Amino acid sequence: MIAPIAIADPDDPRIADYRGVRERDLVGREGRFVAEGLVVLEKLVAAGRHPLRSVLAAEHRVAAVAERLAGLAAEVPVYAASQGVMDAIVGFPIHRGVLGIGERAEPAAEALLDALPAKALVVALQGIANHDNMGGLFRNAAAFGADAVLVGADCCDPLYRKAIRVSVGAALTTPFARTESDLVELLAGRGFEVLALTPGGTERLAELTAAPRQAALFGAEGPGLPEAVLARCRTVRIPMAGGFDSLNVATTSGIVLNRLAELRGAA
Amino acid sequence: MIAPIAIADPDDPRIADYRGVRERDLVGREGRFVAEGLVVLEKLVAAGRHPLRSVLAAEHRVAAVAERLAGLAAEVPVYAASQGVMDAIVGFPIHRGVLGIGERAEPAAEALLDALPAKALVVALQGIANHDNMGGLFRNAAAFGADAVLVGADCCDPLYRKAIRVSVGAALTTPFARTESDLVELLAGRGFEVLALTPGGTERLAELTAAPRQAALFGAEGPGLPEAVLARCRTVRIPMAGGFDSLNVATTSGIVLNRLAELRGAA
Repeated sequence: MIAPIAIADPDDPRIADYRGVRERDLVGREGRFVAEGLVVLEKLVAAGRHPLRSVLAAEHRVAAVAERLAGLAAEVPVYAASQGVMDAIVGFPIHRGVLGIGERAEPAAEALLDALPAKALVVALQGIANHDNMGGLFRNAAAFGADAVLVGADCCDPLYRKAIRVSVGAALTTPFARTESDLVELLAGRGFEVLALTPGGTERLAELTAAPRQAALFGAEGPGLPEAVLARCRTVRIPMAGGFDSLNVATTSGIVLNRLAELRGAA
Repeated sequence: MIAPIAIADPDDPRIADYRGVRERDLVGREGRFVAEGLVVLEKLVAAGRHPLRSVLAAEHRVAAVAERLAGLAAEVPVYAASQGVMDAIVGFPIHRGVLGIGERAEPAAEALLDALPAKALVVALQGIANHDNMGGLFRNAAAFGADAVLVGADCCDPLYRKAIRVSVGAALTTPFARTESDLVELLAGRGFEVLALTPGGTERLAELTAAPRQAALFGAEGPGLPEAVLARCRTVRIPMAGGFDSLNVATTSGIVLNRLAELRGAA
């Protein structure tokens, strides 16, 4: 990386991408996204999935950025500002002191699936509207080695700032694609057995067996997956104690993906 | 329940417990807590663990309160206010429109454990400082039928407003006790096998076997459980894919409690 570029004026046009972070979260960034913190930026750079466009760091964090993002290309500018100027730019006290702007590079869902190996595990999401849950789902997909995540058009954005943070960067490292197409059709057409998690599922999770290509489909808490979707899947339930019939969807994904990882490791 | 008591003045002394909810969250309520929403209040009343002192409902929610909390004793006053007055009382727009004040009734940890049957499952928590995680841990404890939760003195409060909400009321229904004592000593002294979850655990979760009395001990993400604690437990790990070495602690509890529920159901 080249020498940091000092920024003394919060209105400097070179750091326009970082201005009013929360307001911009709401209106969108036209193909760009914000990544917060050095750990997340390291993952972004290491994964090389979405290009990093620039970094803004508080002065006391610049040395750490230089050390831990040493592989940064010279073309990626690193802007340095005092903590006060940085807070004024982003619009709130930014304790982490390191932000980056990334550029979305999402494959088409068909291309993503076509590139998967003969043995593969996919996480498919439908109607996930909460960024905490989205982040947790990606975190678990990464923890249990899912090859890709298929994100239905009715889901929130995995590259929303909070979703990236909750995913501990997994949203930047795990291949994913958004699609308007029917998830089950896309997957079944490529030889995936689609497991749909639902409290009324016909099979217990403990009875599940491995298949070379498996996809685990999760819907929103509350409404869950539509009947028309469930009818085309192998439905699976997690038995629960009396009175409770639903787990948090991210927790559900952790339980299911852990089981699938065990099965696939043993198969 | 008796007829609702109309409240027209946000400064009415009868609803002092509901005033400035967020400010009061921070300073504490001296033995009382706030429960939000009808679903959570129903669980509070049905469980009968912590007494309900009063209810405050927006006018358009009073009929639902009367119907679904029909078993309320006459001594529990139900206050009714317009949405505007209710918002003024609590200090923010309260869309759920139903709040209750409960009174803490927590047993001593020793008494709680001594009352458990010969076959029992306990969740033990150390250093859990995040209310989202606390709520998620209780939600999972309830979903998988844990008999009790033991909360270390270094944990945040399960009856904090947000923790109750995230637990979907499980913090009000699952027996729990806070203790200054050593958790492992308390449990081991009563014949519990203490399983400590840690990325470096010697046994894989998939290899675990059942025992009549088991406790699953969870520590904070990041620091995890201290070595001095781990040394006195059966340590268990959840294998993960390369690059990831930690799951969210609530998700971890879901994975572990699901497995223990399977083992105990089959035993």
